[in-house]
Amino acid sequence: MAAVDGLTVSIDAMGGDNAPDAIVAGVALSRERHPYVGFQLHGDPQRLQPLVQAKKYLADAKDVVIVPASDVVGMADKPSAALRRGKETSLWRAIDAVKEGKAKAIVSAGNTGALMAMSLFQLRTMAGIARPAIAAIWPTMRGQSIVLDVGANASADARQLVEFAVMGEAFARSIYGLESPSLGLLNVGTEEIKGNEDVKAAAQMLRELKLPIDFRGFVEGDDISAGTVDVVVTDGFTGNIALKAAEGTAKLVAKYLRDAMRRSFLSKLGGFFASGAFNTLRMKMDPRSVNGGVLLGLNGIVVKSHGSADALSFATAVDLAIDLVKHGLTEKIHHDIARMAAAIPAAGPA
Amino acid sequence: MAAVDGLTVSIDAMGGDNAPDAIVAGVALSRERHPYVGFQLHGDPQRLQPLVQAKKYLADAKDVVIVPASDVVGMADKPSAALRRGKETSLWRAIDAVKEGKAKAIVSAGNTGALMAMSLFQLRTMAGIARPAIAAIWPTMRGQSIVLDVGANASADARQLVEFAVMGEAFARSIYGLESPSLGLLNVGTEEIKGNEDVKAAAQMLRELKLPIDFRGFVEGDDISAGTVDVVVTDGFTGNIALKAAEGTAKLVAKYLRDAMRRSFLSKLGGFFASGAFNTLRMKMDPRSVNGGVLLGLNGIVVKSHGSADALSFATAVDLAIDLVKHGLTEKIHHDIARMAAAIPAAGPA
Repeated sequence: MAAVDGLTVSIDAMGGDNAPDAIVAGVALSRERHPYVGFQLHGDPQRLQPLVQAKKYLADAKDVVIVPASDVVGMADKPSAALRRGKETSLWRAIDAVKEGKAKAIVSAGNTGALMAMSLFQLRTMAGIARPAIAAIWPTMRGQSIVLDVGANASADARQLVEFAVMGEAFARSIYGLESPSLGLLNVGTEEIKGNEDVKAAAQMLRELKLPIDFRGFVEGDDISAGTVDVVVTDGFTGNIALKAAEGTAKLVAKYLRDAMRRSFLSKLGGFFASGAFNTLRMKMDPRSVNGGVLLGLNGIVVKSHGSADALSFATAVDLAIDLVKHGLTEKIHHDIARMAAAIPAAGPA
Repeated sequence: MAAVDGLTVSIDAMGGDNAPDAIVAGVALSRERHPYVGFQLHGDPQRLQPLVQAKKYLADAKDVVIVPASDVVGMADKPSAALRRGKETSLWRAIDAVKEGKAKAIVSAGNTGALMAMSLFQLRTMAGIARPAIAAIWPTMRGQSIVLDVGANASADARQLVEFAVMGEAFARSIYGLESPSLGLLNVGTEEIKGNEDVKAAAQMLRELKLPIDFRGFVEGDDISAGTVDVVVTDGFTGNIALKAAEGTAKLVAKYLRDAMRRSFLSKLGGFFASGAFNTLRMKMDPRSVNGGVLLGLNGIVVKSHGSADALSFATAVDLAIDLVKHGLTEKIHHDIARMAAAIPAAGPA
């Protein structure tokens, strides 16, 4: 086994609906784009070895290593059970590599709940952060925005919302290279009096703490897809439901379009001529192009790929992990949270 | 002025971006479909009189009356200010007609917050209900579903969620003629352990109370557009954000489609042949076809039309109000809430 140094990414090679084939193929795609990045593939060597050897960019590479793991977390396993009995799983081992300093980031297409539970248990929450959050990359009229939390927590108080804001802003700086991303708090109206107590108190803290964050106040549900701000902050309950409601709507509109195109000879003819345009549309709406939720607030980079990820999709998630390591996301968050904590006693509400 | 009896609907003729022209035109469209329904049009007689006289189905009708109101609530007025100073507004007067028993329902395209505040103040919450809710009609893969609350309240405890369930179920029976509509609680997962405490406690109450409601447990954000259940229950914060996130996504996908169709000569040609199909799609996505949020839980039927409603859109909202009166929605809710209240001491959580 080759020594692991430099930028190494740890991969749960057995997690996800299409593992390990799509996972190894995805790593190969990412390796082609980032030949200087090393990989640890955690899983069954007998299954992984032939897949790795078949890939031009992986075979015989000294810094692409297979680390044996005898067990796999099932997609439907309960997080608590996985945590108790999962020490031999590819997921646990992949996270452990980050904990042990052998890799800078872990990517998995496996069980989300187990990934969260194990990451939290092994990597621990960063100092100064109450709970980690899941950040999603959301397609918008202007490009992309970051939305967090989309499901790590079932609720969030004002201070946690401010922590999410600090982490989300650092995330947007890391992946978009923006100097000062704009940020909004998700609410049911833009007036100061609107919303629940936690959201109102978080807005007040963000105004009073005078952090170097371009806080634009409240934004509403339709501002997410409009791209009104670069970072949208909300609690995990609301964020998860908004994300899935949006996904459901995209599917519904796609169905309407398919139905409409099948209605007449002319529309079918039109559909034939416009098939290139429809392919463009399909790619735009393809969740693979923005694959990868990121767990923020842990001592390490943890990227969750869609469970149904294919090679292309998984490669996008791996590329994202590499980007976040290169741009020092963990260090940025560590720095910004410390600054926030220092500001709170002076200016925060009693 | 003609005597008002039978089924009369009270109209805020001055509320909305296109008032009073679109409002009167919308009432005329609805009157054509429901010639037995009387209307009270509240607003400026000098502006309303010529509009009414110009409409075949309204002019000279004894049961279509203009009730003078000298003031108008502005679309941007604060609800509290409107409530204090708005006694001479068309909105206040239109609601007052329901309170005084002169009309069975009120329809307004005006200021939502003022409509809610004035309706609550004048019509009062029905006995046994803590807070009213706004129900929205949501297009789905299977047709339509009801989602509530979409914004009347910034939060809801378990008992309120159960009240929303009772009201939403009665609403679905009234407008769809379903004998036993299916109902789900919006959550971040479908397992019993998922979600915040209020949602979990509400699910337990719905199971234990043994109300005649076809409760299917938790549903997720993407289940709304999928049409998994007929009625989706959530708090007003989450519901409002989910609704607007869905609206924003529909706009985003429409933009993707327009951009894709403009990319090449072939796609433009295809778009020309498929223009009929695109018109069908546009109608499907047209908010006018499902216009009208309904305030549930008050002593009277209150229907909110979109502020930007045109005649067709406003007529849809008026038709909905007529339907709800005809199907005895207020009486159904009154009956079902009493039954719920009776069940709670016996089976509810301590």
